Amino acid sequence: MTDKGGLRDEAQHLFDVIAGMSRDTAGVSRPAFSETETRVLDFLREWAQGHGLHVEKDAGHNLTFCLPRDAQAERFVLIGSHVDSVPQGGNFDGLAGVVAGLLCLLRARDAEPLPRPLKAIAMRGEESAWFGPCYIASKCLTGTMRDAELDSLHKSDGQTLEAHMQAIGIDTAPIRAALPMMQTERIIEYLEVHIEQGPLLVNKKLPAAVVSGIRGNFRHRAIGCIGEAGHSGAVPRAYRRDPVLALADLLTRLDDSWSTILQKGDDLVLTCGMLRTDPAHHAMSRIADRIVFSLDVRSQSDAVLDRMRALLREEMDQVAKDRKVRFELDAEMAVAPALMDDRIVAGLSDAMGQAGLEPFVMASGGGHDAAVFANVGVPSGMVFVRNRNGSHNPDEAMDTGDFLIACDIVFRHLQNAVD
Amino acid sequence: MTDKGGLRDEAQHLFDVIAGMSRDTAGVSRPAFSETETRVLDFLREWAQGHGLHVEKDAGHNLTFCLPRDAQAERFVLIGSHVDSVPQGGNFDGLAGVVAGLLCLLRARDAEPLPRPLKAIAMRGEESAWFGPCYIASKCLTGTMRDAELDSLHKSDGQTLEAHMQAIGIDTAPIRAALPMMQTERIIEYLEVHIEQGPLLVNKKLPAAVVSGIRGNFRHRAIGCIGEAGHSGAVPRAYRRDPVLALADLLTRLDDSWSTILQKGDDLVLTCGMLRTDPAHHAMSRIADRIVFSLDVRSQSDAVLDRMRALLREEMDQVAKDRKVRFELDAEMAVAPALMDDRIVAGLSDAMGQAGLEPFVMASGGGHDAAVFANVGVPSGMVFVRNRNGSHNPDEAMDTGDFLIACDIVFRHLQNAVD
Repeated sequence: MTDKGGLRDEAQHLFDVIAGMSRDTAGVSRPAFSETETRVLDFLREWAQGHGLHVEKDAGHNLTFCLPRDAQAERFVLIGSHVDSVPQGGNFDGLAGVVAGLLCLLRARDAEPLPRPLKAIAMRGEESAWFGPCYIASKCLTGTMRDAELDSLHKSDGQTLEAHMQAIGIDTAPIRAALPMMQTERIIEYLEVHIEQGPLLVNKKLPAAVVSGIRGNFRHRAIGCIGEAGHSGAVPRAYRRDPVLALADLLTRLDDSWSTILQKGDDLVLTCGMLRTDPAHHAMSRIADRIVFSLDVRSQSDAVLDRMRALLREEMDQVAKDRKVRFELDAEMAVAPALMDDRIVAGLSDAMGQAGLEPFVMASGGGHDAAVFANVGVPSGMVFVRNRNGSHNPDEAMDTGDFLIACDIVFRHLQNAVD
Repeated sequence: MTDKGGLRDEAQHLFDVIAGMSRDTAGVSRPAFSETETRVLDFLREWAQGHGLHVEKDAGHNLTFCLPRDAQAERFVLIGSHVDSVPQGGNFDGLAGVVAGLLCLLRARDAEPLPRPLKAIAMRGEESAWFGPCYIASKCLTGTMRDAELDSLHKSDGQTLEAHMQAIGIDTAPIRAALPMMQTERIIEYLEVHIEQGPLLVNKKLPAAVVSGIRGNFRHRAIGCIGEAGHSGAVPRAYRRDPVLALADLLTRLDDSWSTILQKGDDLVLTCGMLRTDPAHHAMSRIADRIVFSLDVRSQSDAVLDRMRALLREEMDQVAKDRKVRFELDAEMAVAPALMDDRIVAGLSDAMGQAGLEPFVMASGGGHDAAVFANVGVPSGMVFVRNRNGSHNPDEAMDTGDFLIACDIVFRHLQNAVD
């Protein structure tokens, strides 16, 4: 960025102070709608006011920041992310996007006026780790929170999300009434910088990437495969109904289909992250009577998700028939994919080229606030920053140099874009 | 059998009284080398003496029974099994074989003298559930107990097996010295009737079968497959090191080889009875970093076990290479197969035909005292009785009619055989 030294120091300062405010026994913890989160926002308000920025608190107790001249703008570009973290998480998931917005404002203030008004936003609770629902602040802003989400319970204290929001002074009646806290038609576009949560940029040796879309998913927490227990030595193969070999067969079939779908150029990831035989009854010399497993299927394409949904059922039927087992499918949880805006993807790609990098576009596997804005019709775009060791753990490792490159890509896009 | 009504009543009486002496909250419990086991043997002694049989207690506190005329026989056929059960097990695993021996003596006493002297034996501890080691009494009889087995601890009270044996008056010095308690060269052949522990006879609608051999096995309690954790949405397929899909691949390969080996006519069963991702760290949206699983491979053929041992390593190497995971093989536990004597298998098959049944020969998946006798060179044979619901559980279900058919097969064989 123009003032590389100054912006680098500001970024480092913000990251360091906020990490210090939220240190846990491992990593950082910034619970959604907590006192810690409020203290972080108070600090950002002070910092921003000290740098000549205009700051406003909205009805959801998020902060928006802008240059004083844009305070009354009818329409604006919104850039930001969330300040909360998962329990014992890393410092950059969310916070990097908030700092990126603030740096763009500093740069616009100092030397380079932008063609369109810009507002940066620091949102509260986005992580599902605290209450279950994710994207809480952005859902409140867009009027898309559901009552059941407000009624969900905190993972530790058993209080509802609504009670936690009320405890810090938020009026939840408009949220229950699905009234948007921000008029979304005023948002020209929503932009978000975020650390990549996978290893692609590290492997490709790229500091940043433009995001094409946020994968939707369908997920099952506990599918059962039921067979029949028996003596490991005494039951011949032809008489077995072994749920473990049945699941191995099912997963191998799904894995083969995954490979085929990728070869056709479609987007897909598939994970069985949890599985187990029953610890109360399993034994080395006992054919298990039951195995329980999770499944997480994600794609940018609704069509691919639908195809996988159908395939899962077909393969289960076939395996059940071949191996005389029975599958018990639990309730599906699903999130629709959110495509980033084509024009913004193109604009960010151009900006990446202008920053001296080969433009690179990739899918986001994790969910982000940008998905909420995109799904209510706000043209949205994201830039990923290279990050080692994944996110949601204390070992997140984002290089500040990579972060400044991502900010530069966004800023160049802001300079270029004219409606 | 000849005196069908009388023998049926005697069998029923013995099963009922002994079940009553060993009733637990579920099923029966007759712990190895316990007071309960002693009371059962005391009851059998009284019953046998009341029926004109000669009874002796050996140095291992097992009982042998014979007709008075055979008390001094230099060589004899030995028939029997064990009286102990697993905790909360069924009444027939072991006990059926003891009762079968006694019924043969009654029949020989009443009407039909046999060409060779016959001794029936009621052995103590055979089940591994109490101390870990199995076949304890038959190992003591044959001088094949190992010191480590005597030092193994009771599952509940933490006392050694040796302490339990001494507590009921057994002198363990000769056992430590590996001195056989029975001169095995005096045993012409060892015969054992046992309930089938699998579903084959139920499925084949056969009341009994001749056993060809007792499968040996090699087993692993906890093999690790180590990959790399990651975000389920954010890590593309090409960058994954997913231990769950790797294990599915391995098990599918082993299952395919199993099928091929059976098609060639070889004997094999293969079971992965326990597996799990780490409950402390696994999550629906996290690629697991590790999965742990057990493996139990059994065959009557040492060559097949060796082939599977090699195949397991080959397939692990291939999967590790293909999927960038690592397998950690824990210590192998192994038991050699024990083949039943060809002449006895043929004799019992003939006897089965004489009893009006199509001769049927099958492998035993579970281990039995007969394996110990066979492996010290005593020609051995077994007859299985149809049994529903497997063994080692309260739902064992052996029909007394089927049991009498098995006894009849053995008795016909005893009548036929001439050295």
